Amino acid sequence: MIRAGKGKLAVKVDMLVEHTDVPRGMNYRQAARKAVAMCVSDFAAKGTKPDSFLISVGVGRDITEGQVKGLARGFEDASREWGVRLVGGDTNEASELIIDCVMIGFARRFVERTGASPGDLLVVTGSFGYPPAGLKILMEGARAKPAFAKKATLSVLRPTPDLELGVAIAPYLTSSMDSSDGLARSVHTLARESKVGFKLTRLPVGEGVEDFAKVNGLDPNRLVFQGGEEYLIVGTVRPDKLKAASGAARRKGGQLLQIGVATSDRGRVVLRSRGRSRSIADEGWTHLRGR
Amino acid sequence: MIRAGKGKLAVKVDMLVEHTDVPRGMNYRQAARKAVAMCVSDFAAKGTKPDSFLISVGVGRDITEGQVKGLARGFEDASREWGVRLVGGDTNEASELIIDCVMIGFARRFVERTGASPGDLLVVTGSFGYPPAGLKILMEGARAKPAFAKKATLSVLRPTPDLELGVAIAPYLTSSMDSSDGLARSVHTLARESKVGFKLTRLPVGEGVEDFAKVNGLDPNRLVFQGGEEYLIVGTVRPDKLKAASGAARRKGGQLLQIGVATSDRGRVVLRSRGRSRSIADEGWTHLRGR
Repeated sequence: MIRAGKGKLAVKVDMLVEHTDVPRGMNYRQAARKAVAMCVSDFAAKGTKPDSFLISVGVGRDITEGQVKGLARGFEDASREWGVRLVGGDTNEASELIIDCVMIGFARRFVERTGASPGDLLVVTGSFGYPPAGLKILMEGARAKPAFAKKATLSVLRPTPDLELGVAIAPYLTSSMDSSDGLARSVHTLARESKVGFKLTRLPVGEGVEDFAKVNGLDPNRLVFQGGEEYLIVGTVRPDKLKAASGAARRKGGQLLQIGVATSDRGRVVLRSRGRSRSIADEGWTHLRGR
Repeated sequence: MIRAGKGKLAVKVDMLVEHTDVPRGMNYRQAARKAVAMCVSDFAAKGTKPDSFLISVGVGRDITEGQVKGLARGFEDASREWGVRLVGGDTNEASELIIDCVMIGFARRFVERTGASPGDLLVVTGSFGYPPAGLKILMEGARAKPAFAKKATLSVLRPTPDLELGVAIAPYLTSSMDSSDGLARSVHTLARESKVGFKLTRLPVGEGVEDFAKVNGLDPNRLVFQGGEEYLIVGTVRPDKLKAASGAARRKGGQLLQIGVATSDRGRVVLRSRGRSRSIADEGWTHLRGR
């Protein structure tokens, strides 16, 4: 039970399912932490510090004592890391590991997905492509240089939404959301909900992602646009606020990369590169070939 | 997003898992409604009208269109039946049907599990034994008279916590909880959390339960104490408030059955019957044989 102050209440629920969200190489402690991270990411994008969370867990009959302890430690890790209290939950038997995280926060203002206007600058809080590369390394044994492999797999096993950064830049953002479903999906969602379009002029490609793609015969743009699970913030800021927003990000040890601009071409997302414009489909990069 | 007024916020999360919570004969529409009923039951026992709920669903790849529609209808059924808004959710792929319901409500006061004092009367809002009998009929083909079979199976397929009744009697209760884990477990939980004991002087046996038990070679007391999923309220009331509480229940078309009294014998629950006292264990009826 939580005292409700003035303002609004945000409740976020996100379900982690073992066979889709827990890749090979991720242990139960990491899975538990990830389930909470998925919710924290949403609060970071809303610019709101969450107050508390509840956990609903389903586990198989064959769960080991070590795995039970791992889950408990993972929830403790998350609680400490993002300063959010675990206030309740529910335990069940299921066919596979299921962790449903419910997160609650109060605020006077949330950054919504509806506030972008034509002319606003499109910004992101980091580079894309590491998690899909990390998944390829963990699941398919893709080749990578040691330093890149470490960074990419860690981005999968230990996703780290930057809550402090999100809270710090929120006052300057006109709209935002997280990138857990991939950059293309995030930009399209902001476009649809804000009734604008976007022209992308720069791709936020993670360092080493192009090399990794080349070595493994992959499309680097696909890794950047369709990967998902980056847990970065995709948002918009008025041009006259960009400097202040970037300064706020830097003071938290982060960054704000300008990658495009909002247009009045409703629902349309285009990438302008080497003098050509290409549509970017909501479903992701695969659908834009040949356009 | 929900406006937070004065007072406290209650958040309840409950996970329905197909292979443990969805018996043979229950369709997806009924399962969806049941997932919400599980949360409503908790609010009824707290004497609080819930404001809204969120649903996190995991479904198998082989889900049919009819089943998806069934789920949506089940959530609508629940929303209408208990006057509570569906405000959000999350959809995932899982190995079996998983429905996690998150329910939210605001109140100035909740009925807690900690408020019973020695001398308070132990009351329940109905009779026990129908759901375990219904499960035996659905799952094992247990024999039953048609009218009893209908009532018992309906109590499983269409559990109906009485929210209005719960809200109406709340002002008179010193403690309460629902009976979803069985009568024995509820009484023991109230005893432990209120630091009292209970002496039961009457068993709230559902009509026809003893007959059903006899025909099928079952222990009727076990059906009453260990069954669970009754979604009734088990609570305590000061003797001078019993009449008012019963009147409030009757005006909602319900009832309040007095089944015992709180004692100062902390943590101990006894059944007094035919001049003998027997301990009732927290784990349920099976553990009390021979005591």
